[in-house]
Amino acid sequence: MKGFAMVKIGETGWIEKERPECGPYDAICKPLALAPCTSDVHTVWEGAIGERDNMILGHEGCGEVVEVGAYVKDFKPGDRVMIPAITPDWSSLEAQAGFPMHSGGMLAGWKFSNFKDGMFADFFHINDADGNLAHLPDSIPPEEASMLSDMVPTGFHGVELADVQFGDDVLVIGIGPVGLMAVAAAALRGAARIIAVGSRPICVEAAKFYGATDFINYKDGPISKQVLEMTNGKGADRIVIAGGNVGTMDEAIRALKPGGQIGNINYLGQGDNVCFPRIEWGAGMGHKHIVGGLTPGGRLRIEKLANLVSTGRLDLSKLITHRFQGFEHIEEALMMMKDKPRDMIKPVVTI
Amino acid sequence: MKGFAMVKIGETGWIEKERPECGPYDAICKPLALAPCTSDVHTVWEGAIGERDNMILGHEGCGEVVEVGAYVKDFKPGDRVMIPAITPDWSSLEAQAGFPMHSGGMLAGWKFSNFKDGMFADFFHINDADGNLAHLPDSIPPEEASMLSDMVPTGFHGVELADVQFGDDVLVIGIGPVGLMAVAAAALRGAARIIAVGSRPICVEAAKFYGATDFINYKDGPISKQVLEMTNGKGADRIVIAGGNVGTMDEAIRALKPGGQIGNINYLGQGDNVCFPRIEWGAGMGHKHIVGGLTPGGRLRIEKLANLVSTGRLDLSKLITHRFQGFEHIEEALMMMKDKPRDMIKPVVTI
Amino acid sequence: MKGFAMVKIGETGWIEKERPECGPYDAICKPLALAPCTSDVHTVWEGAIGERDNMILGHEGCGEVVEVGAYVKDFKPGDRVMIPAITPDWSSLEAQAGFPMHSGGMLAGWKFSNFKDGMFADFFHINDADGNLAHLPDSIPPEEASMLSDMVPTGFHGVELADVQFGDDVLVIGIGPVGLMAVAAAALRGAARIIAVGSRPICVEAAKFYGATDFINYKDGPISKQVLEMTNGKGADRIVIAGGNVGTMDEAIRALKPGGQIGNINYLGQGDNVCFPRIEWGAGMGHKHIVGGLTPGGRLRIEKLANLVSTGRLDLSKLITHRFQGFEHIEEALMMMKDKPRDMIKPVVTI
Amino acid sequence: MKGFAMVKIGETGWIEKERPECGPYDAICKPLALAPCTSDVHTVWEGAIGERDNMILGHEGCGEVVEVGAYVKDFKPGDRVMIPAITPDWSSLEAQAGFPMHSGGMLAGWKFSNFKDGMFADFFHINDADGNLAHLPDSIPPEEASMLSDMVPTGFHGVELADVQFGDDVLVIGIGPVGLMAVAAAALRGAARIIAVGSRPICVEAAKFYGATDFINYKDGPISKQVLEMTNGKGADRIVIAGGNVGTMDEAIRALKPGGQIGNINYLGQGDNVCFPRIEWGAGMGHKHIVGGLTPGGRLRIEKLANLVSTGRLDLSKLITHRFQGFEHIEEALMMMKDKPRDMIKPVVTI
Repeated sequence: MKGFAMVKIGETGWIEKERPECGPYDAICKPLALAPCTSDVHTVWEGAIGERDNMILGHEGCGEVVEVGAYVKDFKPGDRVMIPAITPDWSSLEAQAGFPMHSGGMLAGWKFSNFKDGMFADFFHINDADGNLAHLPDSIPPEEASMLSDMVPTGFHGVELADVQFGDDVLVIGIGPVGLMAVAAAALRGAARIIAVGSRPICVEAAKFYGATDFINYKDGPISKQVLEMTNGKGADRIVIAGGNVGTMDEAIRALKPGGQIGNINYLGQGDNVCFPRIEWGAGMGHKHIVGGLTPGGRLRIEKLANLVSTGRLDLSKLITHRFQGFEHIEEALMMMKDKPRDMIKPVVTI
Repeated sequence: MKGFAMVKIGETGWIEKERPECGPYDAICKPLALAPCTSDVHTVWEGAIGERDNMILGHEGCGEVVEVGAYVKDFKPGDRVMIPAITPDWSSLEAQAGFPMHSGGMLAGWKFSNFKDGMFADFFHINDADGNLAHLPDSIPPEEASMLSDMVPTGFHGVELADVQFGDDVLVIGIGPVGLMAVAAAALRGAARIIAVGSRPICVEAAKFYGATDFINYKDGPISKQVLEMTNGKGADRIVIAGGNVGTMDEAIRALKPGGQIGNINYLGQGDNVCFPRIEWGAGMGHKHIVGGLTPGGRLRIEKLANLVSTGRLDLSKLITHRFQGFEHIEEALMMMKDKPRDMIKPVVTI
Repeated sequence: MKGFAMVKIGETGWIEKERPECGPYDAICKPLALAPCTSDVHTVWEGAIGERDNMILGHEGCGEVVEVGAYVKDFKPGDRVMIPAITPDWSSLEAQAGFPMHSGGMLAGWKFSNFKDGMFADFFHINDADGNLAHLPDSIPPEEASMLSDMVPTGFHGVELADVQFGDDVLVIGIGPVGLMAVAAAALRGAARIIAVGSRPICVEAAKFYGATDFINYKDGPISKQVLEMTNGKGADRIVIAGGNVGTMDEAIRALKPGGQIGNINYLGQGDNVCFPRIEWGAGMGHKHIVGGLTPGGRLRIEKLANLVSTGRLDLSKLITHRFQGFEHIEEALMMMKDKPRDMIKPVVTI
Repeated sequence: MKGFAMVKIGETGWIEKERPECGPYDAICKPLALAPCTSDVHTVWEGAIGERDNMILGHEGCGEVVEVGAYVKDFKPGDRVMIPAITPDWSSLEAQAGFPMHSGGMLAGWKFSNFKDGMFADFFHINDADGNLAHLPDSIPPEEASMLSDMVPTGFHGVELADVQFGDDVLVIGIGPVGLMAVAAAALRGAARIIAVGSRPICVEAAKFYGATDFINYKDGPISKQVLEMTNGKGADRIVIAGGNVGTMDEAIRALKPGGQIGNINYLGQGDNVCFPRIEWGAGMGHKHIVGGLTPGGRLRIEKLANLVSTGRLDLSKLITHRFQGFEHIEEALMMMKDKPRDMIKPVVTI
């Protein structure tokens, strides 16, 4: 079969591979829609997860089942399915402890384009089909379903991590596709004011659509200074970090109210240390909680979030700015993700 | 001063009383808008809280401060204020334990028209003004602010008690004004499907506006049977009980998924016992959690919920179906609440 | 192979069966120690789970692995293992939602002597060996390990459900072996006063050993009346129900403080309804939470609880009052469980 | 009246002051027992909270009520009382939000020897007597009661912040008096293995008494390296930081399991930034939660923790290594706290 792969750090290309084998609880799918992710860019051009040799890329997409193992109960060839980016080993100790994304080791619930070939291929492999696939409702078009693999669950996890409550003032740092989904999630979780940090007009427009009430451009001064001015010196109740770098935590701690909580969903690709200021952290005593984590993944989560799309609570159309037709365009879509043109939020390829 | 009172069980009337005295941490207010509550009806005509002698009614409204005690810091005469129905003693052991509504004893955080005169008077008393008043934003008209005393915080508490999560199927039993606010809160908390139980057209229309996706009429058969049919036998993830009687819990347990949670905010005025079926409760083992409680009350809560109104997340206009001008109409409004005409959700009197 | 079985409701006997087959993720074990459970008695003589035909009994014990499936990674023949009574399907939607004990349906995580043959046999089957077995530490003798299948995790779950906090007054109703483990768990969770309801001298003595500070005999009057007298009318902060019947909930609600929580771990074998008093439940408004559930089961949980035994925090020796040597004594041990002699807490059979 | 004060940064001395005035909800007490705290040392000799002018020191002690305000209900002159170091304004927005220690601003619930004169005086002032005093049980001697002001509630808060669960492996960094109480709290919360970091023999002996099972000396290499070796590379489930400096967080993150939680209760007196390693934090994705906070304070909390002493769950005698008789010895006791002799855990002065 054919796949679009990371040949080595810094180099991509089309390769030929054997079609993956299907274990007794597994499934093999072919793609219906695919989307490149910023992490694919980190993986290839920054070497964020280390060297990989001819590893097929891609962890966002939906597909059609072509084969299932003998013990799979709920899926059969021909079924159209949603597929989470994170496909845990559900019987692992970590999953039993409530952290399926770390099944088998920190972050090891993330398998596609990390520990095994990803979805940018004629066929790809799903471990534990009953636990990690979900039926694609007719009401959700494949390109929108591909947003349910990673963009939606990651953005929503930021709001879960920050533990947003009714009437909270929430700061969302970064309004790329994940940050936009954090804005949507904050609104759907009962936030009142949602202050979004970002400047690209297309993202600002989308953030308004998803519920942002106020905007900050980091070019106008430190984020924390602007937030404190907007909140009479009180700070935000909750903060979701969906962009920036290792220095962003410093700003977040300064902008946060005592008793507040930070949910980080930004993958930190570079830098040795994350630092924050001692005094503004209350000298260790300020109850400014710092939480950061990979989205849970798995079947139940994607089903629940898809319910929000089916019932019309969440409209994913604003996320997708570029649509391609044909598997061969996946390379072009990935390059677009790398180059980040100003009018792009997310490109999707339908097959 | 003049007030509209419960003279004794079964009888109301206009009475004259001394204006209440203001303690060092307290405030005296005059009303700007007032609303009668179904509990006023229970109190007078059902004797739900026992005998009361010339007690002024009313615990929903907003007002203007006319006097403050020497130690009050944040309010002064002339301030326009929101007023919660529940005004806790914040330093009580119960409040320290996280249950301010039970400060001083079960339900004893509810003082207006229960342990002291209520708001249907020329003047009324606020204990702990800094802890229990909140400034009325210019953007919220007084009649809508009066919905923030009880209808909004009670409805929202149902959703907090039921612990609604992203993508949940939520059943709301009862869509009077409190139930409607539970529907709104479920939508604002991230529910997917919201099944509302109710039949009056004006309420059904309002429930749709607030986010209900499906409707059940209890006249079409047992609620639980209808819910199980609508959910492929699975049941609801979460249930808010905002209406019915002591028999409603039985239906709720049958309609609930194992691992689900019931939040009761319906004041049960009659009946000796609340019962539910042993088998459907998993013979004690089903993790069908039952929670019921009075809304917390106090300043922070009303400020937070008002933030949802100010930012446009919550539109209270649909709650108010009848508007009166002039304090003298409070009697008429209360009688309307007693008679429950089919086109009424909530009457409000502005002064 | 030979097994001791429920032949039909009301009748037990030794039967011959085929040794169970081992699936790719499963294991076959032979017993090292076995214990009968009160639920075995309910199952056979009360028909609590309905008719069963030649079903081998037993869900408490530990064993030695004799065969593993091709995909099992962490266990091999010859390994000595602890075995939970509840062996969930970890990739089920219910387990993903945090309720593995209900995987596949309410209570369906309980498989031994319910949906498949139990442990009172020469050999028995373990579904998902890596997820549901745990290595038996050398420091824990097999007869004590058999208490980790059900008695310990169930008693401890009562305290988790009741959400005991530092310094709480906790009431434990019933001090059979599960109730004793609830007493131990309450002490290990930071309870201050632990009031135990029970009268058998051997149980009272053991309850003292495990941390009970006060005792109530239900023959001296209603439990709730005695608790209210002992707590200056305040009631208990938390209640674990580990005994009684459908009428016990009424007493628990009366004995509980507003803002308190009840954790039920008593299997309710009879009665149509569970009822509690409306007024004492605060007319639906008292924040007296009612929670009841089957223990989670699985590998992580049994490992964690075994850690408490290995580190000397929990001494299981007081639970076991009668020790038998030889598989053939399982019948005698079960009959003892049925007859409940006054000097018995728990009999164990080592093989 | 006479008091022992911080004259200015770096200088202490006995001063004369007016006896404080008693507001309508307040009380005036005289001391029964007093203890100096390491924070007094930080305050005076490190200028940790900035310059103070003739401020009386001390926030650990118990006393006798000599005067109460007109609105105080539960206390009267002559009552012997426990006194928390943290005395919140309970009706503040922060307390209503569940963070009484930050009432009026970050850390501002801490008033004694910070915003007002402390307890090292003939008389001292208690704001909100009903909310912040508690009756001293006869069973608790005054010198032990003085440990309930700060050492016990702070140590226990570390375990609450780290959210210790049954069977967890807990690392406690620092075993001075607060760290020892964290060890005791971890054992009382159901930890299995408790690894304590410390080297002074008297502290190691006390830590064993309170439940530590393993010990690490930081002189033997990096803490994280030792912890990972002791846990087969897995790391600790939970970590309480009760000592060290701004660099300790780095070690804690390395020693923590994904899905684990760090509770910091160490007051960080120096350093600009707290830093931790990006990679070991899972590049922002590891669910290694960082929480740090001042203990809650107030009446309920001290009552609950005193319950643990009264019922014999917690033995405070091992904390107190040096006992002085007579108020004049408070200076000597404070100097001892400054010099930290190797055989000292905590000195107490009884009056």
